[in-house]
Amino acid sequence: MSINYLALANAGVDQLQPYQPGKPVEELERELGISNSVKLASNENPLGLGPKAKAAIEQALPELARYPDANGFNLKARLAGRLKVRTDQLILGNGSNELIDLLYHTFVSAGQEVVYSQYTFVVYALATQAHGAKAVVVPAKDFGHDLDAMAAAITGNTKLVCITNPNNPTGTFLGKAELEAFLAKVPENVLVVLDEAYTEYVDEAERIPSIDWLAGYPNLIVSRTFSKAYGLAGLRVGYMVCHPELVGVLNRVREPFNCNSLALAAAEAALDDTDYLQKAVNLNRQEMARYVAFFEEKGLNYIPSKANFITLDLQRDAGPAYEALLREGVIVRPIAGYGLPTCLRISIGLEHENQRCMEALAKVLA
Amino acid sequence: MSINYLALANAGVDQLQPYQPGKPVEELERELGISNSVKLASNENPLGLGPKAKAAIEQALPELARYPDANGFNLKARLAGRLKVRTDQLILGNGSNELIDLLYHTFVSAGQEVVYSQYTFVVYALATQAHGAKAVVVPAKDFGHDLDAMAAAITGNTKLVCITNPNNPTGTFLGKAELEAFLAKVPENVLVVLDEAYTEYVDEAERIPSIDWLAGYPNLIVSRTFSKAYGLAGLRVGYMVCHPELVGVLNRVREPFNCNSLALAAAEAALDDTDYLQKAVNLNRQEMARYVAFFEEKGLNYIPSKANFITLDLQRDAGPAYEALLREGVIVRPIAGYGLPTCLRISIGLEHENQRCMEALAKVLA
Repeated sequence: MSINYLALANAGVDQLQPYQPGKPVEELERELGISNSVKLASNENPLGLGPKAKAAIEQALPELARYPDANGFNLKARLAGRLKVRTDQLILGNGSNELIDLLYHTFVSAGQEVVYSQYTFVVYALATQAHGAKAVVVPAKDFGHDLDAMAAAITGNTKLVCITNPNNPTGTFLGKAELEAFLAKVPENVLVVLDEAYTEYVDEAERIPSIDWLAGYPNLIVSRTFSKAYGLAGLRVGYMVCHPELVGVLNRVREPFNCNSLALAAAEAALDDTDYLQKAVNLNRQEMARYVAFFEEKGLNYIPSKANFITLDLQRDAGPAYEALLREGVIVRPIAGYGLPTCLRISIGLEHENQRCMEALAKVLA
Repeated sequence: MSINYLALANAGVDQLQPYQPGKPVEELERELGISNSVKLASNENPLGLGPKAKAAIEQALPELARYPDANGFNLKARLAGRLKVRTDQLILGNGSNELIDLLYHTFVSAGQEVVYSQYTFVVYALATQAHGAKAVVVPAKDFGHDLDAMAAAITGNTKLVCITNPNNPTGTFLGKAELEAFLAKVPENVLVVLDEAYTEYVDEAERIPSIDWLAGYPNLIVSRTFSKAYGLAGLRVGYMVCHPELVGVLNRVREPFNCNSLALAAAEAALDDTDYLQKAVNLNRQEMARYVAFFEEKGLNYIPSKANFITLDLQRDAGPAYEALLREGVIVRPIAGYGLPTCLRISIGLEHENQRCMEALAKVLA
């Protein structure tokens, strides 16, 4: 007896690529016969877990056989105070990935259109495909979002527009004026998710007042995460901020215990750890400047970035350089899968890690 | 500007009840002016976090700013060894709830039918509704599944059949012979999920050889969890075991980092903590017997249970007794929402917690 499971699956699933897990660092080191490699591939916070988050986790251990707080009461209260929103404008997720999927589960069905940019976060493409929806991929402008073209791509069948700012994997950034002009053009029955996973790395003066916009744009959904500047990628906590009634609809579909107890406790503590956050942002600024100076000195093409990574354009197939860097013990991210086969995305690491990366680049590209 | 978000939502979402979070224990205690209450409401393991899981969590903390292993390699290897299956027959989830939802996202679309029993795990009803599918709810027999009627309810439009064994919230149990006879009747293009969240509490001699059946029934999916006997409800880890090709299709739709790093580490360690598991099972057996003896002595009606809870049928509205127990500091679960308004579900706690519960019941029902 054998079954064609794909034939039984929902529309769109057959076109999804089966997920290819990346190799664990230990596995890669074993294969290459190296040790002490430097991982600059996943836009993680190189400082590791912050002290307040660590203490909160340890304090939460005795209650771990109990279910999590399904409503994330404490974390939402803390976030609401910080963002100056109501707690009922917040929804918490198992990483912002889960919340993006939840948006699709709730609002996007087969045949509807989703508008997003070329060279953006891969989860939008995957979720669009998984729901049998139609991807309207708008060509990028200077590696970033072309908002005029995106506005023009909206039709009566568009359900959702996805914007990542700063963008991943290119680090490009849309300013306040152009973003607000875009929002003003979107019909109110089209939802706009503004994914600000990297916003903490943007200089405060330049940061988008996206939360303030919620009052005027009830179709706007701001997405944030604790996986980057807050250093909790391993714990999976993201959140969205939007209209309370929209939260109410999403909560109908949300799994009640989607954030686990340690994730909730650590995120709450991380939000209060302003020293850690400042240290992460300062390190990023300092090291980003070092990379830029290095690329300029070497005459290498790069995409100016507001995030915690920088993308180098070798203007030829980047595969060999990626492999050569690996042999030097430096793991970066090839982004051919994003349609950028000549580029390598480098996450900003600790000073000595970046030093190794630059030395390896100098050697490999010589 | 205001938006009717429900009108924008997918089919079925408007019929879902917005989620009502339970009150945290501290909140309840404050309202009632009590302290030291006993929570026997969520079928949690009263022993708390096991020592091996605790040690594994502490060991994993330094890497917590890194993303989790998207493939759960170590936990799957350990589970595969334990269950004598291949690692590619396993899929891990953020609790089995996420995996049930994933099954629906992948295989169930609007208008298709899902067959499940009256008085069973509420997630099936919610997921069926959220996907705009048609719920075919088969009346229970003696508070449990009526497998003959369930087999008869399968039509050409049936996509999925859901069975919980032991059943929640009634604790009823289907034996090997009747379950296998049922499986033999199900057409192979109809998926059957057998949810065995409570299987560790069943005496080994009676336990269902469900994993062995997978070879003969490629439409069978066995679902298990670390939230009950393994004591990790707060961490959210569940898994499904099925045909490798079915795992492959589910992995296309799964979020890559759905299980967080501490959940993976703790579950792996918990699987090795046979002392903890044995202690949990022994405690449950001993205390279940005490409840049964107490109910018999008091002439109270109860549903014989193979799980870590027992359901009492007061044969009148159980609301007042629930409230009266609360005032005694004993929190149990009213299950009117499951269609059993005369019943209270009591999770088996520690010896002194059960003692308080029985004393409170004696007082309240006197």
